[in-house]
Amino acid sequence: MARIVMKFGGTSMAGIERIRSVAARVKREVDAGNQVAVVVSAMAGETDRLVGFCREASSLYDPREYDVVVAAGEQITSGLLAIALQAAGVPARSWLGWQLPIQTDAAHAKARIGEIAVDALAASMAAGEVAVIPGFQGLAEDGRVTTLGRGGSDTSAVAVAAAIKADRCDIYTDVDGVYTTDPRIVPRARKLNKVTYEEMLELASVGAKVLQTRSVGLAMKEQVRVQVLSSFTGPDAPMADTLPGTMIVGEEEAGQQENGDVERQLITGIAHDKNEAKITLTSVPDQPGAVSAIFEPLAAANINVDMIIQNIAHNHGSTDVTFTVPSADLARSLEALNQARESIGFAELVHDTRVAKVSVVGVGMRSHAGVASTMFTTLGKRGINIQAISTSEIKVSVLIHEDETELAVRMLHTAYGLDAADAAA
Amino acid sequence: MARIVMKFGGTSMAGIERIRSVAARVKREVDAGNQVAVVVSAMAGETDRLVGFCREASSLYDPREYDVVVAAGEQITSGLLAIALQAAGVPARSWLGWQLPIQTDAAHAKARIGEIAVDALAASMAAGEVAVIPGFQGLAEDGRVTTLGRGGSDTSAVAVAAAIKADRCDIYTDVDGVYTTDPRIVPRARKLNKVTYEEMLELASVGAKVLQTRSVGLAMKEQVRVQVLSSFTGPDAPMADTLPGTMIVGEEEAGQQENGDVERQLITGIAHDKNEAKITLTSVPDQPGAVSAIFEPLAAANINVDMIIQNIAHNHGSTDVTFTVPSADLARSLEALNQARESIGFAELVHDTRVAKVSVVGVGMRSHAGVASTMFTTLGKRGINIQAISTSEIKVSVLIHEDETELAVRMLHTAYGLDAADAAA
Repeated sequence: MARIVMKFGGTSMAGIERIRSVAARVKREVDAGNQVAVVVSAMAGETDRLVGFCREASSLYDPREYDVVVAAGEQITSGLLAIALQAAGVPARSWLGWQLPIQTDAAHAKARIGEIAVDALAASMAAGEVAVIPGFQGLAEDGRVTTLGRGGSDTSAVAVAAAIKADRCDIYTDVDGVYTTDPRIVPRARKLNKVTYEEMLELASVGAKVLQTRSVGLAMKEQVRVQVLSSFTGPDAPMADTLPGTMIVGEEEAGQQENGDVERQLITGIAHDKNEAKITLTSVPDQPGAVSAIFEPLAAANINVDMIIQNIAHNHGSTDVTFTVPSADLARSLEALNQARESIGFAELVHDTRVAKVSVVGVGMRSHAGVASTMFTTLGKRGINIQAISTSEIKVSVLIHEDETELAVRMLHTAYGLDAADAAA
Repeated sequence: MARIVMKFGGTSMAGIERIRSVAARVKREVDAGNQVAVVVSAMAGETDRLVGFCREASSLYDPREYDVVVAAGEQITSGLLAIALQAAGVPARSWLGWQLPIQTDAAHAKARIGEIAVDALAASMAAGEVAVIPGFQGLAEDGRVTTLGRGGSDTSAVAVAAAIKADRCDIYTDVDGVYTTDPRIVPRARKLNKVTYEEMLELASVGAKVLQTRSVGLAMKEQVRVQVLSSFTGPDAPMADTLPGTMIVGEEEAGQQENGDVERQLITGIAHDKNEAKITLTSVPDQPGAVSAIFEPLAAANINVDMIIQNIAHNHGSTDVTFTVPSADLARSLEALNQARESIGFAELVHDTRVAKVSVVGVGMRSHAGVASTMFTTLGKRGINIQAISTSEIKVSVLIHEDETELAVRMLHTAYGLDAADAAA
């Protein structure tokens, strides 16, 4: 017997037919002898509808009341899934965020989970009841409803799994796992059986959108074994046939050799992200304090700067500074920099949105030299110009021209030996 | 300064435009220096949608989970009204059923309100905040969500008014008050300025559908002064122009003469109800226990029997028994009686749905003889046959042929001097 948390998103909860499919999937785990807690999202579209009401009522809505309104979506689906489970012969009951409670801080609309009281929950599960828990919701210390921000249900599921010491947290999504890269770009991409928390964080934050980044961070901190798997419930692929997905686990477990599994790869995956914009300031005075004059106004505007390169100083005591920001923040970045033009003292402000960041990710690179040089050589051979480089312990990223993204991803996927042997190209 | 409760139904809450109108109406009371608590229904149609989901999920749904689902409708509107009030410059916050809490018994889907904790609520209102409270919801002793049954928001409003010792509970509806009879039948019907709880109970239960009967009973028990008034929020009749409605009060207050008001009428109103069906059992043995043999199976099936007449015994020791039941329960009544045929020993089971109950209601009749005889004479003069009669302290009801309903109501309205002097017929 295992204790597991299953999390279903809005698409899986969109309408009673689908909720019934979810109930059938849960029943399989119960019939297999497992204790199960289910975390659910609102029906697809419902949260947007409720958020729309709040915005229509006031552009400056009170986030405490917004939370009261939007938390209703998950309340509805949790009650409905409990009914559907009972109809399928599975004892079940809903536990709303305030009923457990799931304590959070008071940062309404983007609250962070604190403690989850589990005594009553554990007793109910031990008595054979499936616990149905609305994702996304919590309770502030003053007794008011909070929500965790969009996509927060993944985080709810991981937090519940940590609180009840679950053996596994299964996140049902519209993909069947985490791949070595985007299969739409590389048909020979392979589904990973295992990936470490750190790798998943890098893969998620650079474009492999499977799990909310925050939930991965929490899983790492709490050492919750997370499985990503498909919830596709269409008539042609009943959920009863769900294949194993990708396990997201600690480095130790990920590194273990499995029966028949090949040795762990040096590189786990290749990610790409076209949502960056490059900004260059020319002829910035090459003197102490010049760089902070650039980045302080951006930080004040709450803009995250990613890759930074300071070019070699020109002869006349000035230098060019290049960096990237999220495309969505480009206009605000340019405005902030222009306002600080005098204190920075640049000649020109140039920007380019036609760039892409391509990253190779893998915990294996920690103990292996040459990962970065393989990357540069591979891209160089095909004449792909590298505009910027950034590295972390388990990641090397390069900035290239947007048009070369897919080519670069395919070249690197092959170069690091990630191509599946048997898949057709 | 007064402390008032304002209650708005689903039509008033249907969409943000209307919620804004409600906020404007509430603001007027606040600006007038009143402490205000608002009780709201779900948006029109929303409760039906949520109930539909539950039924679709299972015809035998768990009422505890049903309550979790349907309570969401009022949660949404309470948050939205708080936002709209704040946008109008009125400090406001929502208080969900479990937050106050509004304690109820554990009869899910039809719970009865027990105690309402008001300390936090009163402090917030005293500090100038409008309290927005979802109607219909409560909290059982075991910490689970309850609802009061359809139309329960009227009851919530009265219960909150009692708990906070409100000076008045204003129920905004789609009519502008309680009339002497249905104005669609009698154009010269008059709006009543005041009506007693007892009269309102009789008027409501026999067809004047303005307030939930239960809420009137609670108002009587708790001596809450209830006002029914129009919430019509259409573009042509902005709520700002709301006219005074009908006050529902104790007998003492109702009996007081007001400036310029005429002396209180003997009869307050004429009600009618076409949702009754007549059942006659012929040749029932005229012996002890015969009647209980008829009504026991009906009581066991939870069917309310209304008017009962036992005809004069036939020569051969048998009698006919006639009574009415709600039309909706007719089929079940006939089934129950047929199953008990042997123990009852009737010859024939005859039913008639083409009947109507017409009632004259008024606390004044307690001290005045002749009310019933005026009724019988008036109807007899126009050849309207009376099929059954029932009376209470403040009501006389007759059963007549359905086709004669409107005629009877008009005749009686005139006979008791209720016609307005100045309205055009």
